[in-house]
Amino acid sequence: MNIAILGYGTIGSGVHQIVEEGATLLTKSLHVTRILIRKGKEKTLPYMCDDIDDIVNDPAVDLVVETMGGIEPAHTYILKALEHGKHVVTANKAVVAAYLKDFNECAKENNVKFYYEASTGGGIPCIAGLEKALRIDEVDEIHGIFNGTSNFILDHMQRYGTSFEEVLKEAQRLGYAEADPSADIDGYDVCNKLRISASIAYDYHVPDNFPVFGIRNITKEDVMYFKSMNRSVRFIAKTKRDGDRYSCVVEPILFKESDLEANTQDNYNLISMHGKTIGDLKFYGQGAGKLATANAVVQDILDILEGKEHMERKYENKMKYDTTICRRDYVLRADKACRVYFKGIKYETSTFDKYMLIKDIEVMKMHELMKKVLEVDPTAFMASIYEREDL
Amino acid sequence: MNIAILGYGTIGSGVHQIVEEGATLLTKSLHVTRILIRKGKEKTLPYMCDDIDDIVNDPAVDLVVETMGGIEPAHTYILKALEHGKHVVTANKAVVAAYLKDFNECAKENNVKFYYEASTGGGIPCIAGLEKALRIDEVDEIHGIFNGTSNFILDHMQRYGTSFEEVLKEAQRLGYAEADPSADIDGYDVCNKLRISASIAYDYHVPDNFPVFGIRNITKEDVMYFKSMNRSVRFIAKTKRDGDRYSCVVEPILFKESDLEANTQDNYNLISMHGKTIGDLKFYGQGAGKLATANAVVQDILDILEGKEHMERKYENKMKYDTTICRRDYVLRADKACRVYFKGIKYETSTFDKYMLIKDIEVMKMHELMKKVLEVDPTAFMASIYEREDL
Repeated sequence: MNIAILGYGTIGSGVHQIVEEGATLLTKSLHVTRILIRKGKEKTLPYMCDDIDDIVNDPAVDLVVETMGGIEPAHTYILKALEHGKHVVTANKAVVAAYLKDFNECAKENNVKFYYEASTGGGIPCIAGLEKALRIDEVDEIHGIFNGTSNFILDHMQRYGTSFEEVLKEAQRLGYAEADPSADIDGYDVCNKLRISASIAYDYHVPDNFPVFGIRNITKEDVMYFKSMNRSVRFIAKTKRDGDRYSCVVEPILFKESDLEANTQDNYNLISMHGKTIGDLKFYGQGAGKLATANAVVQDILDILEGKEHMERKYENKMKYDTTICRRDYVLRADKACRVYFKGIKYETSTFDKYMLIKDIEVMKMHELMKKVLEVDPTAFMASIYEREDL
Repeated sequence: MNIAILGYGTIGSGVHQIVEEGATLLTKSLHVTRILIRKGKEKTLPYMCDDIDDIVNDPAVDLVVETMGGIEPAHTYILKALEHGKHVVTANKAVVAAYLKDFNECAKENNVKFYYEASTGGGIPCIAGLEKALRIDEVDEIHGIFNGTSNFILDHMQRYGTSFEEVLKEAQRLGYAEADPSADIDGYDVCNKLRISASIAYDYHVPDNFPVFGIRNITKEDVMYFKSMNRSVRFIAKTKRDGDRYSCVVEPILFKESDLEANTQDNYNLISMHGKTIGDLKFYGQGAGKLATANAVVQDILDILEGKEHMERKYENKMKYDTTICRRDYVLRADKACRVYFKGIKYETSTFDKYMLIKDIEVMKMHELMKKVLEVDPTAFMASIYEREDL
């Protein structure tokens, strides 16, 4: 099977490496015959090119791996490849979250496959696990640590008492965080992964209009305060379903020290799902990184090579976002002046004057109030409190 | 697809329930048409019978689910079903560990499938995960909590300071432990699961001649002593590979309080594997229980229905058990008289006079010494010490 790789960054070159090393009988049947690089970049390999048309018009190319990231031109190139009868495998969560329904339809019309295991959970086979669970159960809950960079930051703040800024710098030095870390720390990355997982689970293309609150404002003192509650903070995406109603939210959550989430260290991911017969199922591993993510890309390629079809989704279910199915307790740190917004809402103030404990509030309502709070105190931070029973 | 179930205990009736409820399009295509029960037992359903020949000679039966447990007659019945051209799916770890190579060959000769996901890790899709990882990586290490009963006992001793006997009784009351708990607490159950996993990983039918030390002798005081070391004890099966050399061992291991194993509570399982490109991968879930295990059985049935072939293994590799690749530190509680066996071996005695810390000893050697120790002090207990770097 001949493969063209679009983009030759970390993941693209990782896919190339695994295919070239061809360690198993299966991977020996794969050949990278074309690599698309950016116009003006030096062509360091004879089969590099900078024109997508050279690839889609090459009848020898069977499959296109897209690892460019971002929406455009990835979106256009994926559609072009599918329309030219090439299978497409991608690691690009942004473009999958936005267009999975269109890609799916286009692949079907052209009798080729469109797979994207690497887009969610990196090397963790969580899409495969989800699709497998869905063959028998309705999956009524997915939650987890879907972002290694933010987990590295929160885990190191917790374990070493360092400040957000210091850990971020360390993460950037180690190559875990980008120069502009906003996609990781403000939750857009996680948001895409949640949309992809929830869309598969519900057979409905979940829109991105759900509450997201990031970790940019967390301080050393916040972490110490959570410690005094015997809690550890993690950045969590979660979705819950009840019949045709669902909720999605991305926010920091406080876990008990004995919860697996609280013990998910460094840049690891931990992805959980729940079904009636399977119960709780959790997958832990490298949610990012060159070879682990490339492994997931090559797994999808091997599925196509072996004719192992993934679950068919049409995304035609009717689902309704329901703000009432997700209520939680929150800890909020904000200037006292913000308390005016919480009139008529149950809350306690802590001995540390800065913190408020808000009881049993709708998640959507709390995120709306937080927007007002941030206008008064742009440094404010909040986290919800995890109870095993009612995530 | 018509299914016959052999054995109508917890798992057999769970499979029946999932198939009858037929929640998804796929499970709707399954029909249980025969159930084999023990001779003399009351036939509570019209399609129950007590003669295996009625089942294997029924041309309408496509697939046989074996959930009787134990070696015989399961072994004979599975071979009979395969020889009569029926696919076989089993949850029976004892018979799979002993005969997986024979079953595999027999299935191939008769052009049917023999699958056994439920035999290892209950509802956790760890065989699927292992086979998937093996498509790209050599899996050089598998370890984990493979037994819910022993984990329930150790976790509750650790968290509530109860004695082994008290927790065992509680586990029996809850239905987690059998009246005769020896398979769970002496490690035979785990031993079978390790053999199955290692055999798939190494494409070699791993024999059962490796060291096994159970948890029967653990006391409240042991657990308190481990706590004073900031360690939590778990019952672990592990295998490691280096080229054509491997080791397998089943023993209690002391984990740091922040290790995921130490936070695997109640009767949950946690199964870990490592490969060069995928890194560390861990699967957490219900390792036993009616519906979770039945879910795994039905997953195998659906794979056969959908034509999703599992990895082909011939078990023809040449591997060598090597005692030198696995060395560890141990904590030993034993009568002082036993120290005579440790002449010439590096050890420290603790402030608590009963405990010895033995440094960097071959696992096989330690298990041999432990046999001698138990002759002098039949109440002795030992556990090795986990370091993330060198399991």
